[in-house]
Amino acid sequence: MGEELKIIVKKEDRAFFHNHVDYCIGTGRMGLALTKEYQEQLKLVQAEIGFKHIRGHGLFCDDMAIYQETEDGDAEYNFTYLDRVMDSYRELGLKPFLELGFMPGKMARGEQTIFYWKGNTTPPASYEAWEDLVKATLEHLCGRYGREEVVSWPVEVWNEPNLPGFWEHADMQEYFKLFRRTIAAVKEVDGRFRVGGPAVCGGSDEVWIQAFLEYCRDNGVEPDFITRHHYTTGLPEYVGHYGYPELMEAEEGFANLHTTREIIDSFPAYRGKEIHITEFNTSYIPNAPLHDSCRNAAYIAHQLSKLGDDNASYSYWTFGDVFEEQGVPFTPFHGGFGLVADGCIPKPTFWSFVFFKRLKEKKGHCILRDGSAVVMRLEDGSYRGVAWNYTVGRKGESCLLMLEMKEEGEGCLLTETVDEEHGNPLKVWHDLGEPAHLTEQERKILRSAARPFVETRRVGPEGGNAGASFPVRENAVVYFEWRPGGIVSDRGYSYGRAVQ
Amino acid sequence: MGEELKIIVKKEDRAFFHNHVDYCIGTGRMGLALTKEYQEQLKLVQAEIGFKHIRGHGLFCDDMAIYQETEDGDAEYNFTYLDRVMDSYRELGLKPFLELGFMPGKMARGEQTIFYWKGNTTPPASYEAWEDLVKATLEHLCGRYGREEVVSWPVEVWNEPNLPGFWEHADMQEYFKLFRRTIAAVKEVDGRFRVGGPAVCGGSDEVWIQAFLEYCRDNGVEPDFITRHHYTTGLPEYVGHYGYPELMEAEEGFANLHTTREIIDSFPAYRGKEIHITEFNTSYIPNAPLHDSCRNAAYIAHQLSKLGDDNASYSYWTFGDVFEEQGVPFTPFHGGFGLVADGCIPKPTFWSFVFFKRLKEKKGHCILRDGSAVVMRLEDGSYRGVAWNYTVGRKGESCLLMLEMKEEGEGCLLTETVDEEHGNPLKVWHDLGEPAHLTEQERKILRSAARPFVETRRVGPEGGNAGASFPVRENAVVYFEWRPGGIVSDRGYSYGRAVQ
Amino acid sequence: MGEELKIIVKKEDRAFFHNHVDYCIGTGRMGLALTKEYQEQLKLVQAEIGFKHIRGHGLFCDDMAIYQETEDGDAEYNFTYLDRVMDSYRELGLKPFLELGFMPGKMARGEQTIFYWKGNTTPPASYEAWEDLVKATLEHLCGRYGREEVVSWPVEVWNEPNLPGFWEHADMQEYFKLFRRTIAAVKEVDGRFRVGGPAVCGGSDEVWIQAFLEYCRDNGVEPDFITRHHYTTGLPEYVGHYGYPELMEAEEGFANLHTTREIIDSFPAYRGKEIHITEFNTSYIPNAPLHDSCRNAAYIAHQLSKLGDDNASYSYWTFGDVFEEQGVPFTPFHGGFGLVADGCIPKPTFWSFVFFKRLKEKKGHCILRDGSAVVMRLEDGSYRGVAWNYTVGRKGESCLLMLEMKEEGEGCLLTETVDEEHGNPLKVWHDLGEPAHLTEQERKILRSAARPFVETRRVGPEGGNAGASFPVRENAVVYFEWRPGGIVSDRGYSYGRAVQ
Amino acid sequence: MGEELKIIVKKEDRAFFHNHVDYCIGTGRMGLALTKEYQEQLKLVQAEIGFKHIRGHGLFCDDMAIYQETEDGDAEYNFTYLDRVMDSYRELGLKPFLELGFMPGKMARGEQTIFYWKGNTTPPASYEAWEDLVKATLEHLCGRYGREEVVSWPVEVWNEPNLPGFWEHADMQEYFKLFRRTIAAVKEVDGRFRVGGPAVCGGSDEVWIQAFLEYCRDNGVEPDFITRHHYTTGLPEYVGHYGYPELMEAEEGFANLHTTREIIDSFPAYRGKEIHITEFNTSYIPNAPLHDSCRNAAYIAHQLSKLGDDNASYSYWTFGDVFEEQGVPFTPFHGGFGLVADGCIPKPTFWSFVFFKRLKEKKGHCILRDGSAVVMRLEDGSYRGVAWNYTVGRKGESCLLMLEMKEEGEGCLLTETVDEEHGNPLKVWHDLGEPAHLTEQERKILRSAARPFVETRRVGPEGGNAGASFPVRENAVVYFEWRPGGIVSDRGYSYGRAVQ
Repeated sequence: MGEELKIIVKKEDRAFFHNHVDYCIGTGRMGLALTKEYQEQLKLVQAEIGFKHIRGHGLFCDDMAIYQETEDGDAEYNFTYLDRVMDSYRELGLKPFLELGFMPGKMARGEQTIFYWKGNTTPPASYEAWEDLVKATLEHLCGRYGREEVVSWPVEVWNEPNLPGFWEHADMQEYFKLFRRTIAAVKEVDGRFRVGGPAVCGGSDEVWIQAFLEYCRDNGVEPDFITRHHYTTGLPEYVGHYGYPELMEAEEGFANLHTTREIIDSFPAYRGKEIHITEFNTSYIPNAPLHDSCRNAAYIAHQLSKLGDDNASYSYWTFGDVFEEQGVPFTPFHGGFGLVADGCIPKPTFWSFVFFKRLKEKKGHCILRDGSAVVMRLEDGSYRGVAWNYTVGRKGESCLLMLEMKEEGEGCLLTETVDEEHGNPLKVWHDLGEPAHLTEQERKILRSAARPFVETRRVGPEGGNAGASFPVRENAVVYFEWRPGGIVSDRGYSYGRAVQ
Repeated sequence: MGEELKIIVKKEDRAFFHNHVDYCIGTGRMGLALTKEYQEQLKLVQAEIGFKHIRGHGLFCDDMAIYQETEDGDAEYNFTYLDRVMDSYRELGLKPFLELGFMPGKMARGEQTIFYWKGNTTPPASYEAWEDLVKATLEHLCGRYGREEVVSWPVEVWNEPNLPGFWEHADMQEYFKLFRRTIAAVKEVDGRFRVGGPAVCGGSDEVWIQAFLEYCRDNGVEPDFITRHHYTTGLPEYVGHYGYPELMEAEEGFANLHTTREIIDSFPAYRGKEIHITEFNTSYIPNAPLHDSCRNAAYIAHQLSKLGDDNASYSYWTFGDVFEEQGVPFTPFHGGFGLVADGCIPKPTFWSFVFFKRLKEKKGHCILRDGSAVVMRLEDGSYRGVAWNYTVGRKGESCLLMLEMKEEGEGCLLTETVDEEHGNPLKVWHDLGEPAHLTEQERKILRSAARPFVETRRVGPEGGNAGASFPVRENAVVYFEWRPGGIVSDRGYSYGRAVQ
Repeated sequence: MGEELKIIVKKEDRAFFHNHVDYCIGTGRMGLALTKEYQEQLKLVQAEIGFKHIRGHGLFCDDMAIYQETEDGDAEYNFTYLDRVMDSYRELGLKPFLELGFMPGKMARGEQTIFYWKGNTTPPASYEAWEDLVKATLEHLCGRYGREEVVSWPVEVWNEPNLPGFWEHADMQEYFKLFRRTIAAVKEVDGRFRVGGPAVCGGSDEVWIQAFLEYCRDNGVEPDFITRHHYTTGLPEYVGHYGYPELMEAEEGFANLHTTREIIDSFPAYRGKEIHITEFNTSYIPNAPLHDSCRNAAYIAHQLSKLGDDNASYSYWTFGDVFEEQGVPFTPFHGGFGLVADGCIPKPTFWSFVFFKRLKEKKGHCILRDGSAVVMRLEDGSYRGVAWNYTVGRKGESCLLMLEMKEEGEGCLLTETVDEEHGNPLKVWHDLGEPAHLTEQERKILRSAARPFVETRRVGPEGGNAGASFPVRENAVVYFEWRPGGIVSDRGYSYGRAVQ
Repeated sequence: MGEELKIIVKKEDRAFFHNHVDYCIGTGRMGLALTKEYQEQLKLVQAEIGFKHIRGHGLFCDDMAIYQETEDGDAEYNFTYLDRVMDSYRELGLKPFLELGFMPGKMARGEQTIFYWKGNTTPPASYEAWEDLVKATLEHLCGRYGREEVVSWPVEVWNEPNLPGFWEHADMQEYFKLFRRTIAAVKEVDGRFRVGGPAVCGGSDEVWIQAFLEYCRDNGVEPDFITRHHYTTGLPEYVGHYGYPELMEAEEGFANLHTTREIIDSFPAYRGKEIHITEFNTSYIPNAPLHDSCRNAAYIAHQLSKLGDDNASYSYWTFGDVFEEQGVPFTPFHGGFGLVADGCIPKPTFWSFVFFKRLKEKKGHCILRDGSAVVMRLEDGSYRGVAWNYTVGRKGESCLLMLEMKEEGEGCLLTETVDEEHGNPLKVWHDLGEPAHLTEQERKILRSAARPFVETRRVGPEGGNAGASFPVRENAVVYFEWRPGGIVSDRGYSYGRAVQ
């Protein structure tokens, strides 16, 4: 045990903490939502976490088969797969956060594609045809799911146009045109739709967001919110099928995010406009073994404690590992973006989300937030918190989290721990020999090993104070809950004699 | 860490071990099989363990409603509930081990009843009526489930007639008559039925079994197998709703069982006749908190390693806690007999059965058995074992189990641990304040806490020998499995870099 | 085809129709809710119909085990089974309509019991003990399910005290005392509880209700609503296990119900007070083969069209056939009260409820109600209706229902028919030889045969009017729905060529 | 009613009938097996019919991602999706009938592709690379599913090489080379694999099969069985998204099939060699509305009665409508090949398979087969049969099927009917307006309407003979079952009084 992390809980404390952990989650391209493994992973995610929105690429890609042409070249729209996907989301309690893109092959101006699955990333040959597609799609959705419902689905225009791979030549003016034409088309369907952009990735975001807002201001375009992405690793080193990036200091990233806030607020008309981080994760590649680790979970826990400061939402990229941007993975633990590995095995980061979601389940307020923990006091007199241990450059250290709950009486402390030895299927998979193809028994072992370690203890007033401590090992994420109340034994029952 | 338990595994070793862990399981009275909670507990048991037979009381009790009378006093049989129960067993892959009893109220000679649920424990007013009932029931079962199938269900006559509560006055001659009349009736339906008795509880068993066999020998009665029970605690001390007994030395019990074997073998005609222990557990009361503890699990693990020495089967009493002999329990952890607590929460002893069942799943042979462990070598080159730490009067000691696998190469050691801190919902329930009525959240916590701790490690050749050690704490039961083989990493994958 | 039943639908018509079809459903004694078959039948009922409340006997009967006594004779309450039952109801979206009764054996003044399951029907030995039981039970429910929720559960005091079997000597003054003490106890727990009585069966109801209201008025007792029962057959003729009653003219029953309304309204203080029919059915015996027939379904459809005229609710007795008042049934179709036969087979009357429920699913208003049909016009421009053909003494006649929808355009007429040949498992079961014990294949056949016949047809404007007709055979219940709109064929699709 | 179809059942009759209805079923390309809708349709098919094998295209197509190349151009195999698909088949009790094809893009000699999903249909650039792929795939399957199991999966080489779309230039010699190299590679993995070809479609089959067998004979190639396809319509007329073909006389098709038998038998070495029809259906296009009709069901019923005469199996193309050869369908009833329409709605032809499967469920023998019916007598004394009414050029006629069961006593006749008005969701969908996007209510209606009409009647001895008749309307398929035995009523039960 190294450093001691002492948390003194005082009822009357108040801390600033906006918890939007469950607003939105990312997904690989929409066409994959037709698959069974995808749906099973998403079902698990919804059962244990329960997100409100889902956002991903590929709404208009060819595998969704929306845009078709007759023998005479006239457009005809096919919503068979769109309905199937949307039905499945709604069955799981999810609303889409619609990303309009990429370009149907037959409508595209060029032939540039991105990814293994070949999404066309060029502008439309005809903006009228694009507008028709957007309007027809939204009208269809309104018809099927109810207009009142569908206008509550946020709409984003395209993805990362500041990268030439995602938008030919990263042509800024062309994107602004696309945005202007698209927002107009969407509002034509229903003025209540909320539409945002420019969905840029980090790095050059300042330039783009500044220019985007100037364009909007100068052209009478009124975005309803601003979107950007947030990844926190450097360039990976590639070896074989995998890439190994370095994590950056979290503060660097938060500072970068804050500049976006400042740029927006520098425009009087846009001051306070919502920012939605429509993608975030540590690494931006779908084959970074880092994603499957406890280290990732601890780092993301820290992110979840802070991202609400400046942003209305932040959508982890992605919920699961059914994802084909770099092809089909060779093994279940291949460093995919997902919270869940193939075979429906939760990764450590899954629990970071579960734990932060629990902080919202009941009414309460935050009494403490620092770089290693968040603690809520609930109206029913209980406490809930999450602690994590991630420190770049201080590897090997452990913390001991001490709760001192002055003025509280007897209670039960529940902890759920994810660390190297608990809730860490990656290690078990490695120890099993890194099998590429799991047997049924191995899948069962991995699923069992992927659950946090649940522990309870009685916490009583000692010298007038209630208090407890528990370790938060390196890269651990620990959920804790203190429930007030003494033991009420049934007549004649003695736990001591039961276990003597 | 106290004593060190060193197991040296040698491929060529052989040990005597008969593993009948899954032959039969006990159940409270049959009428309770109509309930949903019962079926859910049994479904869990069958999914994780998978017993072949199930035996319990109350086939002919009034709540099963089989025996009816017309306005004129003629018998009519109602098999509505019987079918419902039998259908449910078969859906879960279970065959009954039929216990014929107790007496339908309208057929009974007297009014003595037993238990909260008032099973009549007197002889039939008319043996002809009893024979008719037995025959009609078996004929009905043959008609519904197929004669070939039903004759494979063992039949036992009554339960613990050597106790006056279970059989009026514990009248030995009357029981012998019952047995003689019943076996004849059963064989009349089909000579292939296998019928046994006298189902005595321990204590006076020597006297009864001796007398029973003499009676059989002298009266031309041919039982197909002998049955008795096996409980291993002394008289409990009662406080309020609960009883607290002392565990006896396991060897005392084994010795007592062996006398049964010797008595039987002393009859030339019955030498080698199968013994079925149709009930066993530590305590014989359904409100002994001991049953819910790890201590019980470790004690039972030891039993499972030895009971096959003299006996063809041994049926743990009971699979679940839907059981009303002393009334309805006030709390989920009330010391019931079950492997599963109400709310479908596995108790530690559940895992003793899971672990011993795994020893049978694949072909192999036993290479080691001692008072703390059993180890199998499987044909696929892997090893599986169970270790436990139960020693009366040496509380507080821990063991370190060391495996030395000479001549074996690299592999993975998997352990699944149940002890004080793992797989022990009783402690968690206690810490939560011993809630009588579980909330949904509490049930979820308890179910999570009821799973064993799954751990893996790489085991490599060190100095020419493969070896590994792991702790077996007080009252722990640990399953371990060694799987041969090295790590085969996908191209470019480095676990070390993933978790750096 | 006999008589022609012509319904001319006019958009602007309005008819009086209060549809409380789904407010409440009856159930056999609460202890049976622990069984699996009960829960499966109830699940089916909730999935297809969806009731809001459930009411049945036996909350305080011994099998629920709520009232217990210590060795010293002190009361202690056991809510283990109560929670299990209530949890199961809530899982299916049901709130209880609590009937307080019968008397725990240990609390009872006398030994009189009713039914196979021996409910004690005598007053409490101590009214204080009774009040304590009532209060403890309600407090427990408030604690577990939330006070706000539980006070929305209506409470009724006892069942049919005007029958000496249900209340010793049918002692009116003793019942009034019970009511006064009980309502006071309930209101002490929370003044928002709504409490009613006297739960009388028909026949002597006028006397009892008059006297009850006088007592209340004179003693400052303020019931929140009045309850009574409603059965519509005469005395059955009994043969063997069954009883065969005659159906009465429906109008007789409605007239009798209306007198209750008039009696209440004759008390200025109680004018307009809600009446809840907490039980209704055709026959009042659980072994009347009539219950399983189409005739019953048609008769009940008529009831459902009228009972809302004077009453706030009417609870069909019962949802399913897990019910033991006269013992355990010998066959699946034994004339039980249930909408569902054992084996989860819907009876014809099940569909009467499904069909009336559909009339409420979307917003609309009633445009026609007569003795054979109810028709709603929905806000979306469609029509839904139920027609039935039940006429005492005019057996053998068929109707042809003609819809004339003036001013409506093209559309689709959907009918779902239950009659002799469709949705009638009783006939199929009879034809199969009346098997007492269903094989899996027979159960499957019966479930298939128990579904209504679904038929569609195009209805176009003919001579300016849209119209359609369909037969409503003797004892039939037919759901019909007219949906506006033409056929929109996909490009190139021709149904005519598909089926040429 | 037109023609009367009289079937006189005589116990002692015998008829020739080989029923291989459930040996194999077709599927669209294997990659679609990853989707949820596909799996749900297949689950329904397996639950109600239960096929043994499944065969489809696309094992080696790029979406299965098996063949990969490293940065250096070396082959590496990815079995992630293959395992997922095979696991799903095995979960549903299916074994693959492996079709080896088409060509991975990176391994192909040319760029010709087929279908919307672009299967490459050119020979391998390197036959060594192809052999390696085949061997690696089979070895992987043996490793995962067990060698004993996998060698029981039949293997077929490519698909319809006699069509230039499926095999570049329909190059016969190149196919023979492919066959020779492939069978050798497969046998190298395990000599027990059974391998067949040439998988030709009808039409030119005589030429190809003759030449194939000559090639085999002359080159020492020993195929284990011969495969071909069987479609029974002419060229369709195309309109918009659909095609409308004419059905041919069934006898023409059977005659064509018989020539294959004769060609094979003309080779002394191949006499009696098994023929597997690895695809059959009426039309060979996936957008023929005919497929969804009752007419198709009746025609296929006739096929099922005869195809076993010359062939070891016949695999209907396909089980479901998740199929993309001509793109994504615009509506649920688009004339796909499937037994099941999108939305898990069984089509009439589904029931032809269900009914023929029932003829095999119990032991028995065929006593009658003619052009309109097959009748089995089972060992338990019951009869089962299927009747259909399909006659080209005699539209509008109905049949009355009369059973005369001389020497049989009383019994129950069960019929399940699929015709225009029953089990015909196509008509209902049409009447509903041909909705392209089903609402939940519409899906429910269609599923209900897709079930056969179940009817029973008592059949008694009349004038010494048992007999019954029932209509078989135009395009109907009717399952019938006669079960011997009288009615055994429970004491006091009277059906007559129940329904009076």
